[in-house]
Amino acid sequence: MRVAIIGLGTVGGGTFNVLKRNARDIAARAGSEIEIVAVASRRPNPACELDSIEFDTDLIRTATRQDVDLVVETLGGTSVAADVVKAALQAGKHVVTANKALIAELGNELFEMATSNKVTLAFEAAVAGGVPVIKSIREGLAANRIKSVAGIINGTGNFILTEMRDKGRAFEDVLKEAQALGYAEADPTFDVEGIDAAHKLTILSSVAFGIPLQFKSAYTEGISAISPFDVKMAEEFGYRIKHLGITRLTGQGVELRVHPTLVPESQLLAKVDGVMNAVMVESDAVGQTLFYGPGAGSEATASSIIADIVDITRAHYQDALSGVPALGYSEEELNEHPILPIEAVNSAYYLRLLAKDTPGVLARVAAILSEHSINIESITQKEWQEHDGAVPMILMTHQVAERNMDHAIDVIQGLDVILAPVVRIRVEYFTAS
Amino acid sequence: MRVAIIGLGTVGGGTFNVLKRNARDIAARAGSEIEIVAVASRRPNPACELDSIEFDTDLIRTATRQDVDLVVETLGGTSVAADVVKAALQAGKHVVTANKALIAELGNELFEMATSNKVTLAFEAAVAGGVPVIKSIREGLAANRIKSVAGIINGTGNFILTEMRDKGRAFEDVLKEAQALGYAEADPTFDVEGIDAAHKLTILSSVAFGIPLQFKSAYTEGISAISPFDVKMAEEFGYRIKHLGITRLTGQGVELRVHPTLVPESQLLAKVDGVMNAVMVESDAVGQTLFYGPGAGSEATASSIIADIVDITRAHYQDALSGVPALGYSEEELNEHPILPIEAVNSAYYLRLLAKDTPGVLARVAAILSEHSINIESITQKEWQEHDGAVPMILMTHQVAERNMDHAIDVIQGLDVILAPVVRIRVEYFTAS
Repeated sequence: MRVAIIGLGTVGGGTFNVLKRNARDIAARAGSEIEIVAVASRRPNPACELDSIEFDTDLIRTATRQDVDLVVETLGGTSVAADVVKAALQAGKHVVTANKALIAELGNELFEMATSNKVTLAFEAAVAGGVPVIKSIREGLAANRIKSVAGIINGTGNFILTEMRDKGRAFEDVLKEAQALGYAEADPTFDVEGIDAAHKLTILSSVAFGIPLQFKSAYTEGISAISPFDVKMAEEFGYRIKHLGITRLTGQGVELRVHPTLVPESQLLAKVDGVMNAVMVESDAVGQTLFYGPGAGSEATASSIIADIVDITRAHYQDALSGVPALGYSEEELNEHPILPIEAVNSAYYLRLLAKDTPGVLARVAAILSEHSINIESITQKEWQEHDGAVPMILMTHQVAERNMDHAIDVIQGLDVILAPVVRIRVEYFTAS
Repeated sequence: MRVAIIGLGTVGGGTFNVLKRNARDIAARAGSEIEIVAVASRRPNPACELDSIEFDTDLIRTATRQDVDLVVETLGGTSVAADVVKAALQAGKHVVTANKALIAELGNELFEMATSNKVTLAFEAAVAGGVPVIKSIREGLAANRIKSVAGIINGTGNFILTEMRDKGRAFEDVLKEAQALGYAEADPTFDVEGIDAAHKLTILSSVAFGIPLQFKSAYTEGISAISPFDVKMAEEFGYRIKHLGITRLTGQGVELRVHPTLVPESQLLAKVDGVMNAVMVESDAVGQTLFYGPGAGSEATASSIIADIVDITRAHYQDALSGVPALGYSEEELNEHPILPIEAVNSAYYLRLLAKDTPGVLARVAAILSEHSINIESITQKEWQEHDGAVPMILMTHQVAERNMDHAIDVIQGLDVILAPVVRIRVEYFTAS
């Protein structure tokens, strides 16, 4: 599979770098190598090492090269990008795009063009960035009649609303900070007035209900009029205000609307904070499902673009049986990583000790942990009605190999001041790395 | 595509019913009709109307019928189910299963058998029920090097831990209730000791890291020893105790472990409550993604089984271009639902009125809403420092058509006692229907 990337900005550059960095794994999963043969952009991207890959500033020329099978369009906008995508499709190239405006506004025409040229036009990256929500709805929920889709599909807006709630700040104030942090554009209209979300919702609606794209019929209301007072009131009543895109199939037709919405705080959707995106789907067989992850960013968006490239490679260049291997890799390509015994696993721990209420216990326990290279994060002693003369001690530790903890607990358990079996529960932080 | 369903219990019956109920949509998405030609089970299922579909109690005979292309195995267990699946594969039938024990324990052998018989063995339904998490990892995240997968993948265990936290109840007490509600089996060992979760985690690990299935190497620790005291302590420190399956690729090998785990309450995973499942994936390009939904249940599991059937139909009986249409349906099959104008949308509302602090205002507002068929759920009046002699009134309404609300607001806005523009924010409950 020979690929040209048109537009080497944030998303195009990320696609270039992930394709190169993970080339071996991606080839194993696709069943065929994905080779970048050419890149075109108005200017080079210093984050991308082109090596021997051809660079051109002529976008159309690169998109229609004879030696290219698939074109990645990461220009954005609906003018030049439309010209590039049309030229590529007409030249018989598959096209993968992250461009929600292009698909929402011109998709019907472009899909027809793809069909008549016998190529695929794929757009997973256009909605919710790195979250494979198009695939999940279109394929994963194929058995269902979808009832509704509701999503937090603009990270900037969700960041602003989250800050307004957490810190009681005003909209304009948070917007300025978001602009300084690079989360919001200098002209924030697309994000805060809901146009970007309406583009994405239009696409979700069509995929959910099998209807042509109808962006012009979407209702759009922004978040700029939301006051800290209403955020606080909503909270007091047990709600969060979220900027939702909602599309729902009723007996009369399809609702297609983006507006601020009170959501009960018990809903998982209400708990999606900061720049993260989430799409919730209600459908007849499965009920409620939710897909969550980063809705923007260089490599997150690249992830969805490359997933589309892999799908197209499998569909067009593999026979059905070598399509999607059961475990992701073909049997010959399976990895040989050993499974680690639990003793070799690193974890943080919660420990609960029931100790005699005498001086020096804490010092003895701390010394034993220290001898086993275990760092204590906190120690708390708790009231305990049932045990006179005994006190439960809760310790939170930093990460350490389980075998060290096993040994340390053996020693602690042997102390005459420890009155019950030590309770040990592992702790995981899942911090982004 | 001609299908036989082997096992007509909860999941098999659900598959039967959803395939029949949504036949038109499923055929449009698959590009070909999915026809149930035979059903085999130890006994009939009164929830399924067989009509003219053949019913047999001979499982193997039905699984190897000449007129069958694909066998759905919904028996469960690893003895009879293994015989049926092997017979089907050897007879050249595709197989779709929801059987996690079968895949986790015998999957390596079965996948080889599928490959050598040039058929597909699919198992989306084996992990997290209706959530398309196998597809999301294997295809949606194909660009990524996966770092870790952590999941709440046993609904019974999560229900018990959620009840222990919410109500301070003891493990045994909640277990008994779960058994009475049908969430837990009479012998709850598989669920509460983590064996079921370890089966599912073994499958997730292999799909994430491309390694053979190694269920025997999984570390498993149950939740029966968790005390209400530890649940409370965890909460006090800002954590939730969840029964997690965790698999992580390290420089030394693969961690594969199921155990109770403290998770910071800021993590979305910590907020997954009741019988719901969620799988969180950390990967190099996209970062953190999470897939949420019902992990069990008749039609939820059926949803994933049918998604696999649709995929196999597309891969084996369609050319690449009619594979997955851009909008889920082929262009000729697109639906013609109209997009509704916002006035026709039904919604509940949050209204904020700034009114003169004089008697009778509330009665006048209530009367206007009533005249427009708008039912009030609650009215609250709030202190308001900035406005002397004025009081903000917050109303929450029941669902009503937006055009009624528009008219009502027009009239309210015209009252001389209303001192500022009425603030109106829509409310969505997303209650399961």
